[in-house]
Amino acid sequence: MEQRLSLITLGVSDVARARAFYEALGWKTRAEPEDDVVFFQSGGMIVALWSREQLAEDSGVEDEGGWGGMTLAHNVRSPQEVDAVMDEARRAGARIAREGAETFWGGYSGLFVDPDGHPWEVAHNPRWTIADDGSTRLPA
Amino acid sequence: MEQRLSLITLGVSDVARARAFYEALGWKTRAEPEDDVVFFQSGGMIVALWSREQLAEDSGVEDEGGWGGMTLAHNVRSPQEVDAVMDEARRAGARIAREGAETFWGGYSGLFVDPDGHPWEVAHNPRWTIADDGSTRLPA
Repeated sequence: MEQRLSLITLGVSDVARARAFYEALGWKTRAEPEDDVVFFQSGGMIVALWSREQLAEDSGVEDEGGWGGMTLAHNVRSPQEVDAVMDEARRAGARIAREGAETFWGGYSGLFVDPDGHPWEVAHNPRWTIADDGSTRLPA
Repeated sequence: MEQRLSLITLGVSDVARARAFYEALGWKTRAEPEDDVVFFQSGGMIVALWSREQLAEDSGVEDEGGWGGMTLAHNVRSPQEVDAVMDEARRAGARIAREGAETFWGGYSGLFVDPDGHPWEVAHNPRWTIADDGSTRLPA
């Protein structure tokens, strides 16, 4: 198994609402308005929105609702950019779980939760490198 | 907010056990044996393993256990490669939720669940392009 992730699918209760949230953050998709799955090309991988009920069935798991032990992160190039993205998320209707602040690991981050309960940390980690194309690298 | 994901953190009950599972799949990390967070460079992003309890607290969410509406996928270049990765996952101790088979969307996929309940679809989608570096692209 190669060491990579190709796709992450976020289960949502209302695809149109979830799509509108990510579009309000500036994300673009080629999905048609009536499509029941929405794909966003996200660097070298894909982020998808799909019915949580169908995703649970397709994934062979029981769904009792709530959070499931996965948190997403969007790394940026400065603490100021963390605050700017957190403001965008607030305007798009996210719940703000943590405002941007210095972290225990020596960086700066905030955390928002999307309309379906999926948490996104917005982080500046001074030890990680973000290339012009947005790809993020651990220290060499 | 740029259209990309930098990091996904998988909350786990035992970091050493989870690390051993991903290492059995062939993944490599530079983490020290005693590190409480394990980072895997995964293409242009990072996959991390961390205590689910600490991750919940850090993410500002309540955790009642179980699945949370996110499913990962690892796309490969042929149906045969799906079956090969599924065999690797079985040998590494994954629960097999679905054996490789043709799918309703015109591809071929199987699904395994890691020791902490995180589902991974292993998929061949003939409409998506996988580059030599593993990056995956939607149709143009």
